[in-house]
Amino acid sequence: MNFKQTLHDKVKTTEDILLTYLPKQEGYSAKVAEAMNYSLLAGGKRIRPILMQEVFTLFGGTDKIIEPFMAAIEMIHTYSLVHDDLPSMDNDLYRRGKKTTHAIFGEGMAVLAGDGLLNLAFETILDSKMEPDFYPRCFQAMQVLATKAGVRGMIGGQTADILAENLGSHVTCEHLLYIHKNKTAALMEAAMMVGAILAGAKEEAVLDMERVARMIGIAFQIQDDILDVTSSLEVLGKETGSDSKNNKVTYVTLHGLDASQLEVKRLSEEGIAILLKYQSKTGEESSFLNQLLEELIGREQ
Amino acid sequence: MNFKQTLHDKVKTTEDILLTYLPKQEGYSAKVAEAMNYSLLAGGKRIRPILMQEVFTLFGGTDKIIEPFMAAIEMIHTYSLVHDDLPSMDNDLYRRGKKTTHAIFGEGMAVLAGDGLLNLAFETILDSKMEPDFYPRCFQAMQVLATKAGVRGMIGGQTADILAENLGSHVTCEHLLYIHKNKTAALMEAAMMVGAILAGAKEEAVLDMERVARMIGIAFQIQDDILDVTSSLEVLGKETGSDSKNNKVTYVTLHGLDASQLEVKRLSEEGIAILLKYQSKTGEESSFLNQLLEELIGREQ
Repeated sequence: MNFKQTLHDKVKTTEDILLTYLPKQEGYSAKVAEAMNYSLLAGGKRIRPILMQEVFTLFGGTDKIIEPFMAAIEMIHTYSLVHDDLPSMDNDLYRRGKKTTHAIFGEGMAVLAGDGLLNLAFETILDSKMEPDFYPRCFQAMQVLATKAGVRGMIGGQTADILAENLGSHVTCEHLLYIHKNKTAALMEAAMMVGAILAGAKEEAVLDMERVARMIGIAFQIQDDILDVTSSLEVLGKETGSDSKNNKVTYVTLHGLDASQLEVKRLSEEGIAILLKYQSKTGEESSFLNQLLEELIGREQ
Repeated sequence: MNFKQTLHDKVKTTEDILLTYLPKQEGYSAKVAEAMNYSLLAGGKRIRPILMQEVFTLFGGTDKIIEPFMAAIEMIHTYSLVHDDLPSMDNDLYRRGKKTTHAIFGEGMAVLAGDGLLNLAFETILDSKMEPDFYPRCFQAMQVLATKAGVRGMIGGQTADILAENLGSHVTCEHLLYIHKNKTAALMEAAMMVGAILAGAKEEAVLDMERVARMIGIAFQIQDDILDVTSSLEVLGKETGSDSKNNKVTYVTLHGLDASQLEVKRLSEEGIAILLKYQSKTGEESSFLNQLLEELIGREQ
């Protein structure tokens, strides 16, 4: 298996799915639809929908019911970036080498585009035609997605992140872990749990996927903090050093670069060990998922 | 029947329901929960949940399944106000005589609180325990709610409203009608349609409820424009004249005060006429609904 080619194909497949759910740019609401589409199509690694699809396949899922959920989680992730980049939040003008939504469409339209994307995530799932006997799984999957995206998940993490900025060097390890767990890991947990739920996996397996995703998600966020220090605009596609510019405490400022890199390694190994329990077959799909997780964590951008 | 006392009781019942779904103010996410709760409890007429409940009753609904939907629609309405009041949008410091969310909690936290409320609307519905044979209705009701709140509804209306500000006197009647239909009426349509759907009403009745709500909603918005001109901070509880301050074209600036008041009357009479078709019984509940709609439209605040 050529990992890079397979990943490229899966990103393409995900983006093709996303394209089928984009809002129409027409009439008096064309501008917000344009801003939403711009945000959704401004690149990105499409990690969450691909993780969802891989776990779905791992647990024997085969049909297209996963597709609106894949689109929905990418919409939720995208809206969180659009709002996070706002002047009243991180005030970033670039992301992935492209101008952020508010830098192009203005602040008010970026607020609305984010709102529109969060709302569209639920519309996308609810608009999908589905067999009645699929309702219970779908309901449970939506519940997980909504919980992990909300104040008990991602939004809670964002809140803790804003508070951390005001605390400066007084931010504790516990506080920082809460941020990483909720701001980043929560949506990865949703991705892997939804994949398992929609495939009909048992509750224990769903909870194991939550644990794997949490470890990978936290490792991913620590890696993000590492890259903010070590990478450049050219490689990363966004302004670097923005954390220290904003006086942000990160895992790296608390623990140093070496300890951070070790922790990323430990978390990813532990996560993949749990995953291996479920991979009785050593088929291509399973090994792709493990390679993807390792790649995510060892990434340079 | 004492209308004012009944309305007061129904507002109280709605707020009691809302209280059971508030996010907990604890841990590192306490601040956003506090901002969400402040926004939800800063008064308001609770029109949408009460409309939903009344239509549910009109079509024979009796159980508690309506309650999370009542809370959800008020959360969606509230988030739209929180974001609409932001400096990058209408920049209002007061609403209903109280400081707006961003005026108290800061702009970033107000963005997050709005996001949190929209998300919480779906969490609230999805967390509710429900019998499996209720899934289809619940799914359809959520779909209507999500569609009417999104870019094909309320968010589309907000977008058209922002565009209108830049167009000044070039805003057409069609454009203004689009704003009123989507920014305000769409969520009232959702309220009345969801009430009917959850009670098991036929499709024709659901569509009739959409028509009634659209007329009432547009009339309501024209009345809002009228009040912005004729009322005072003391009566209205928010800064008046803000439309003209922001150079906003409104129904009143386009058609004058007298024509606006006539249009409000025409729309409300037509809407109530459709409703009467379904009110074979002249029981208290039905007459309360009609009186509520008339009250909404003839209101002074």
